Amino acid sequence: MTAGTAGTAGTAGTAARPDTAGAAGDEGREMHALVERLYPLCRSITGDGVRRTLDIVGESIPLRVREVPTGTPVLDWTVPKEWNIRDAYVKDASGRRVVDFAASNLHVVGYSVPVSATMTLAELRPHLHTLPGQPGLVPYRTSYYAETWGFCLAENTLAALPEGRYEVRIDATLADGHLTYGEHVVPGRTSEEVLVSCHVCHPSLANDNLAGIAVATRLARRLAGTDPHYTYRFLFAPGTIGAITWLALNRERAGLIRHGLVLACAGDRGHLTYKRSRRGDAAVDRAAAHVLRASGRPHEIVDFSPYGYDERQFCSPGFDLPVGCLTRTPYAGYPEYHTSADDPGFVTPEAMTDTLEACWEITRVLEGDRRHLNLSPYGEPQLGRRGLYGSLGGRSDTKQAQMAMLWVLNLSDGDHGLLDVAERSGLPFHVVADAARDLRAAGLLKELG
Amino acid sequence: MTAGTAGTAGTAGTAARPDTAGAAGDEGREMHALVERLYPLCRSITGDGVRRTLDIVGESIPLRVREVPTGTPVLDWTVPKEWNIRDAYVKDASGRRVVDFAASNLHVVGYSVPVSATMTLAELRPHLHTLPGQPGLVPYRTSYYAETWGFCLAENTLAALPEGRYEVRIDATLADGHLTYGEHVVPGRTSEEVLVSCHVCHPSLANDNLAGIAVATRLARRLAGTDPHYTYRFLFAPGTIGAITWLALNRERAGLIRHGLVLACAGDRGHLTYKRSRRGDAAVDRAAAHVLRASGRPHEIVDFSPYGYDERQFCSPGFDLPVGCLTRTPYAGYPEYHTSADDPGFVTPEAMTDTLEACWEITRVLEGDRRHLNLSPYGEPQLGRRGLYGSLGGRSDTKQAQMAMLWVLNLSDGDHGLLDVAERSGLPFHVVADAARDLRAAGLLKELG
Amino acid sequence: MTAGTAGTAGTAGTAARPDTAGAAGDEGREMHALVERLYPLCRSITGDGVRRTLDIVGESIPLRVREVPTGTPVLDWTVPKEWNIRDAYVKDASGRRVVDFAASNLHVVGYSVPVSATMTLAELRPHLHTLPGQPGLVPYRTSYYAETWGFCLAENTLAALPEGRYEVRIDATLADGHLTYGEHVVPGRTSEEVLVSCHVCHPSLANDNLAGIAVATRLARRLAGTDPHYTYRFLFAPGTIGAITWLALNRERAGLIRHGLVLACAGDRGHLTYKRSRRGDAAVDRAAAHVLRASGRPHEIVDFSPYGYDERQFCSPGFDLPVGCLTRTPYAGYPEYHTSADDPGFVTPEAMTDTLEACWEITRVLEGDRRHLNLSPYGEPQLGRRGLYGSLGGRSDTKQAQMAMLWVLNLSDGDHGLLDVAERSGLPFHVVADAARDLRAAGLLKELG
Repeated sequence: MTAGTAGTAGTAGTAARPDTAGAAGDEGREMHALVERLYPLCRSITGDGVRRTLDIVGESIPLRVREVPTGTPVLDWTVPKEWNIRDAYVKDASGRRVVDFAASNLHVVGYSVPVSATMTLAELRPHLHTLPGQPGLVPYRTSYYAETWGFCLAENTLAALPEGRYEVRIDATLADGHLTYGEHVVPGRTSEEVLVSCHVCHPSLANDNLAGIAVATRLARRLAGTDPHYTYRFLFAPGTIGAITWLALNRERAGLIRHGLVLACAGDRGHLTYKRSRRGDAAVDRAAAHVLRASGRPHEIVDFSPYGYDERQFCSPGFDLPVGCLTRTPYAGYPEYHTSADDPGFVTPEAMTDTLEACWEITRVLEGDRRHLNLSPYGEPQLGRRGLYGSLGGRSDTKQAQMAMLWVLNLSDGDHGLLDVAERSGLPFHVVADAARDLRAAGLLKELG
Repeated sequence: MTAGTAGTAGTAGTAARPDTAGAAGDEGREMHALVERLYPLCRSITGDGVRRTLDIVGESIPLRVREVPTGTPVLDWTVPKEWNIRDAYVKDASGRRVVDFAASNLHVVGYSVPVSATMTLAELRPHLHTLPGQPGLVPYRTSYYAETWGFCLAENTLAALPEGRYEVRIDATLADGHLTYGEHVVPGRTSEEVLVSCHVCHPSLANDNLAGIAVATRLARRLAGTDPHYTYRFLFAPGTIGAITWLALNRERAGLIRHGLVLACAGDRGHLTYKRSRRGDAAVDRAAAHVLRASGRPHEIVDFSPYGYDERQFCSPGFDLPVGCLTRTPYAGYPEYHTSADDPGFVTPEAMTDTLEACWEITRVLEGDRRHLNLSPYGEPQLGRRGLYGSLGGRSDTKQAQMAMLWVLNLSDGDHGLLDVAERSGLPFHVVADAARDLRAAGLLKELG
Repeated sequence: MTAGTAGTAGTAGTAARPDTAGAAGDEGREMHALVERLYPLCRSITGDGVRRTLDIVGESIPLRVREVPTGTPVLDWTVPKEWNIRDAYVKDASGRRVVDFAASNLHVVGYSVPVSATMTLAELRPHLHTLPGQPGLVPYRTSYYAETWGFCLAENTLAALPEGRYEVRIDATLADGHLTYGEHVVPGRTSEEVLVSCHVCHPSLANDNLAGIAVATRLARRLAGTDPHYTYRFLFAPGTIGAITWLALNRERAGLIRHGLVLACAGDRGHLTYKRSRRGDAAVDRAAAHVLRASGRPHEIVDFSPYGYDERQFCSPGFDLPVGCLTRTPYAGYPEYHTSADDPGFVTPEAMTDTLEACWEITRVLEGDRRHLNLSPYGEPQLGRRGLYGSLGGRSDTKQAQMAMLWVLNLSDGDHGLLDVAERSGLPFHVVADAARDLRAAGLLKELG
């Protein structure tokens, strides 16, 4: 199986990619290659698909993989049985596989129990899931916590099935085992953490969430060796139960999380969407809003709601962590969502690069957002004497950099950080941060704790 | 005199009513019948018109009627003399009644002192009040605190009066007596009160305020036997001096008022208008805004101002009670205001039913707006295991009820009530309240004090 | 040299003034006459031009003039050498003055060091400043803190200069001396101060800032003998270094400043612009916003930024004084800014009168914005009994004055001042203040501290 083979009507093919990959550069190409490589694996909330995914991510960044046994109590939940699948099909009377797991892992309802039977189409039908409104696409369905089995197929395929008897087989195991997740840590100068989390439980769906995995992996590589202020923790875990398991096993550590981002739907052609944390005004909320606004990107910022990705868990009231969610088009906001059309052709190197860049800029703001004290707060200090200011007065075209210095000096009373300065001044954060650096160098500014 | 006889050009006649009463149902028909029955009575701030009005209301709901003697000091005021009128007219030289109290009680300026004299039209003219801009209508005028007398008539009538001598007679008494008001109480499980107040001092004016009286009466009947959390106090009192008298005699009780609504102009065909309390963000302000917004009704919400109905008194700074005012078209906002055109044809069963429904929904929010504690606040509790959540995952069409559960769980940290949840989630209050009920039943939620 | 001689294409001549001066009245004419008289003087941040300017202002209002010696440390700065200039020119080979200080003092870069030399046009060119985009205008340039010399001229003049040798002479002195500023104080009943500040360092520029000087002078005369609550301090000082010097010498006094206005660009034909103080919600910010809004003037209100006039110094974080800036078109917002086109014809008596009126109204709000206590806070007091209210009820056309009384009574709980009342009620401040006066007279209201 190659990337794109599950692609059907309604999505642009992968053919378009080479033309635009140049603009995205090496990082974009590498991220897309990772998506294509991970795409065929049959991931679920447990099982070898997750393990193989973490193995491949681990080739780019070192991962600490954790195996949590079935039955372990995790917050209000229990780690479920482990599910693995080898093969599955529906054969017609002639022995032809009319629905075939080998063609696409979406064809089997996730966590289906084993079945091996022959039945009429009428008996089979309650186990068949289609999208009547998108008759060419295979839907994605799971049933983690209610033991059942089923197949997903295109409505067109179903419509063409004649009455008669069908051989139905799902060669899967649902048995005690483990839940698997991986962590990568970029150590910082402090134990305060930035969490970057993405789910690794969806099978052949590219935007949801192989693109998120790819962007997170690449972001970790960018941070390597930058000696950051914060410790960056990258969490690759199955959705919901994975985040819950991590939180259950890391209650103390969760208290160290100062900022966090959940990454999902990171590769489609839509614009970026940032969903605020439950707090609504956390530093990461303000940093993301600033980055998106200051960059001039079309974007959307939406309020928190307790539905979506694992921000649901991180923002549950007991934890209430300052974790937002960055996506391009949000879940269920595109027709390809949770269908076979969310294939590698649906995500682009350019889009993933853009998402990566936004993440990077957000980390730049978080890293650089310090409070300072103006050491010469009475009147303006004489910048010209220190070579910080054009010496020929009377001109009205004061430069952005000089405005940034004046703003940093004016607001550095101990109550405002550099992000405050950027927001109030309307200047890009990096200009403000550069001004603060120059003012520190000139002895006019002191960084606070 | 029958309802509508004072009706003149510019208002729809009562003939249109039967066609639409069906949509309003029994409650609408009963409210309109009450308006028609109360309409002919000559009410003022004191006197037998108020007593007769309270008698009639008392046929529907038990009233405790209070008589407060003339001269009683009430806050900064004094209960005035009681005014009663038997007859009044202006007769022309031929003995014909050209202005006749028997035709409409609006023809006499309220609180007119007795007069019996013959005078020229020129001498009479300073005592005649018309509406030159609405020449067919009789205005409503009073002079409670400056002893004088006068007649109100249509400009057209005045224009047709020939010069000559006129016999003028007002057979009224202004003497020591009482101010009368009535109260109806629906006892609640707590002594905390919800006040519903309407004025009963206007003579033949249907929207201002017979419709308010009718809606309040009906709301009281709806609440009967509901075993509410709050004690509901319905006050039927003359405007200004009645509210002031009640406040003077109930200073302690006023401290028990947690929420309140002044009802006026409750029956015209315009949309609902809610005027906020002086506080601006009282629970009743938020409840009314939620009900009006969530219902999809066209409506308007306006800020408090110290003019209008008895919210002026309840929201005076010494009391500062959380009392808003619900009307349809506000006072002076319709041309029929304070004229003979505000007759029973001007108010409809449908409009009164709609006002009643809004009042009812507001009480539902006030009754149900409790704070809860999520008993499983770390991560989401597993709703599926408890039968609270669809078990087949992967679908994007999460139902409103499930969203409500997630919102209630997420915000039930002790700081947020269910109205907070409804406001932040954008879900209707009753959906949120139902979700809380189900979560309580499942042991996931505990109601706080 | 007469007023307007430096005027060039692009500005209305002074000829238009007499037609409109009538509307502006005596104050407008006097302010414009002052602008014309001050216009020819060659002001800078030090020197005899400032002294002569203060002498002339001192003819209208008594000034206390302070001379601060060169070398005095003032906050982060040092009082510079004093600069004086007698003559300056560039002569061509024929001995003709092609650039002549005697024609306009803008022709010499402020603080130019003495020079006396003969050089080629190529050698001279780095010292010549023009406005290529406005080829007919002479720019205004200074170089206070980097010792250099230069000439300013019209681009058209420069373009016409032939190659060849030029005689260059600047007969100036830059030597130890003094920085000069003037203060005028209108004593108030309290030591709390209102600061009105304008810069006096610009040479022949009418709007920036002779109009500001004229308006400040006239405002001081209006305040004379009004026995104000606040002490009003008018500061006429060179920009930046003058304000810094005053702050350095008056650190304690600065703590008494309760409100302040920097006046600049006070005479052009554009609408008024108020720039908020750093605090953003200081009383002067609210007062200015109220005056501009309530007057119905077209106007603009902009947020603080640490660039502009001497609000930069007063609002530095160490002082953080509640000082806003009132201008018409702000600096650099008009093409005549800092050019020879900012001549007396660019400013009008009407515009300066309008600015003066706004300043005056702002002082009326600051003077009158007191908190009161409603002495009859339970219910409305009976206004009619006290002759404060129309006695004939039932009318909907309640007058603005009566609404003001109700608002003052309703909000006078000790927490709200009269400006709060004006803002919340939407009534003009003077109507609110009059209502408070009447209520005080009726014994219903008590003024708080």
